[in-house]
Amino acid sequence: MGAASRIVIDWGTSSFRAYRFGADGGAVETHSAPAGIMTVESGGFEAAMRKQIGHWLGDGADVVLSGMITSRNGWVETPYIKSPASIEHLAAGAVERRLADGIRLSFLPGVCQLEPSPDVMRGEEIQVFGAFGPGESGVAALPGTHSKWVRVEGGLIIGFRTFMTGETFAVMRQHSILGRLIPDAATPADPQAFVSGVRQAADAASPGLLGDLFSARSGVLLEQFPAADIADRLSGLIIGHEIRGAAALGWTGDTVRLIGDPALCGRYSMALDALGLGGAIAPEDAAARGFARLDALK
Amino acid sequence: MGAASRIVIDWGTSSFRAYRFGADGGAVETHSAPAGIMTVESGGFEAAMRKQIGHWLGDGADVVLSGMITSRNGWVETPYIKSPASIEHLAAGAVERRLADGIRLSFLPGVCQLEPSPDVMRGEEIQVFGAFGPGESGVAALPGTHSKWVRVEGGLIIGFRTFMTGETFAVMRQHSILGRLIPDAATPADPQAFVSGVRQAADAASPGLLGDLFSARSGVLLEQFPAADIADRLSGLIIGHEIRGAAALGWTGDTVRLIGDPALCGRYSMALDALGLGGAIAPEDAAARGFARLDALK
Repeated sequence: MGAASRIVIDWGTSSFRAYRFGADGGAVETHSAPAGIMTVESGGFEAAMRKQIGHWLGDGADVVLSGMITSRNGWVETPYIKSPASIEHLAAGAVERRLADGIRLSFLPGVCQLEPSPDVMRGEEIQVFGAFGPGESGVAALPGTHSKWVRVEGGLIIGFRTFMTGETFAVMRQHSILGRLIPDAATPADPQAFVSGVRQAADAASPGLLGDLFSARSGVLLEQFPAADIADRLSGLIIGHEIRGAAALGWTGDTVRLIGDPALCGRYSMALDALGLGGAIAPEDAAARGFARLDALK
Repeated sequence: MGAASRIVIDWGTSSFRAYRFGADGGAVETHSAPAGIMTVESGGFEAAMRKQIGHWLGDGADVVLSGMITSRNGWVETPYIKSPASIEHLAAGAVERRLADGIRLSFLPGVCQLEPSPDVMRGEEIQVFGAFGPGESGVAALPGTHSKWVRVEGGLIIGFRTFMTGETFAVMRQHSILGRLIPDAATPADPQAFVSGVRQAADAASPGLLGDLFSARSGVLLEQFPAADIADRLSGLIIGHEIRGAAALGWTGDTVRLIGDPALCGRYSMALDALGLGGAIAPEDAAARGFARLDALK
């Protein structure tokens, strides 16, 4: 490790989050902004980075980049490494670039699997490597627009699955008939309505998500619950079906480590509890820990 | 039966379809138009009806109305009758109105169930009573925006379930990341891609729809199939999960009678075949047959 600044950037579709590391390997400063790659014109990534963290970039800074910034729509597209994947594989798969003023950029690869179902991720893997230490095993869930469930064995990512949970909730709420009954006035989140949805999804007699969704509307028409409940019931139904799917993969036997936004992880924790499954919210700085592990490999 | 014209109108959200019956009980004339209740301003239903079928309306015509025209957003809201429901219950639950010039209107009720899951329908029940004769038993599927699966026992509708299949396909295609990869140029429907999606959904190892959807994108990124396949794979995945759900209810043991648009029923028939299940497309005039049965009760 030299005297140059060591910086990592987790640059996703909708957000930019950077960490500056100190000599001891811990993150000493963080900076985040709603400046995801979607907000940047093609060819404008260097300027966008300098705008966010220019004050950190001394001569010869080392910058590691992860997330959708390494995709086809990002700055430099990197290949996917195949699971089973270790943090060492991740480091070895990086694509290096050097800027005119000597700053070194290292774009991390994504992770893919071909079997049993094709799947990809870019950025989540570093959080998983932060939440699991070397040699550890278990399951992580990273709730979000495209939730990821990741199986880790002996420190390796051995399989994962993307659930389109957050996006499905958003499009059904905004664009389907279910959204039209939801009152305009914001109502406080109702844990009971949410848990009812979760339990309905997990019921052995459930005919799947498509067959459960309409009940969020019919139940209101038949006065079984108020329209104010629809959003929470719908959220419970959809998250419940995600968890049911993870259970079908055999991935809910362990205590699931929940990684990500604390409020959303809290919802998943409540859902897992309601189903008698174990969930534990991982420390919020999983990405920083993952980057620190990566930094220590150098 | 008097000399007055006997007319029935199946008036849904997006379409208007009317039948004029002859003295022998068969439909002698039909008229349909894309003039669903969504296209009519509140208070304008009588004028809208006269515009479509004014030439059929002699003095004292009897008009039966079914479908969303009997909902809160329609002309006259009728209550739901509870399943188990017979065609006689349907006739008995009608709400009568008389127009200024003596025309008699009879608005049919919808059908609801409270257990095991709240569900409602308005209009599909008459098609089911047309596809099943008195005393018959079996299962009907009515594919569409909100597909209905209906269990009939001894001529009674004893249970049903709405699957939000068509609407889910539409919103995922138009508003989700899956749609963005679909080529703009229209491609001919690909039965192989469709059936691949159906089989993936029906696989015992499937983690449910939310966990299968993203593979339609990942498979393209990983070059397992071309982007031109996405729409058909997505259709297969979603219809496959509907059928899987109906199977979970125990409703696919019989030959399923498919009622509705012939092209869509053809897709469902192909999907059922691919899964080794039985499906038979019902005669297209199920609604007219149902109305004829209703007419014969008078």
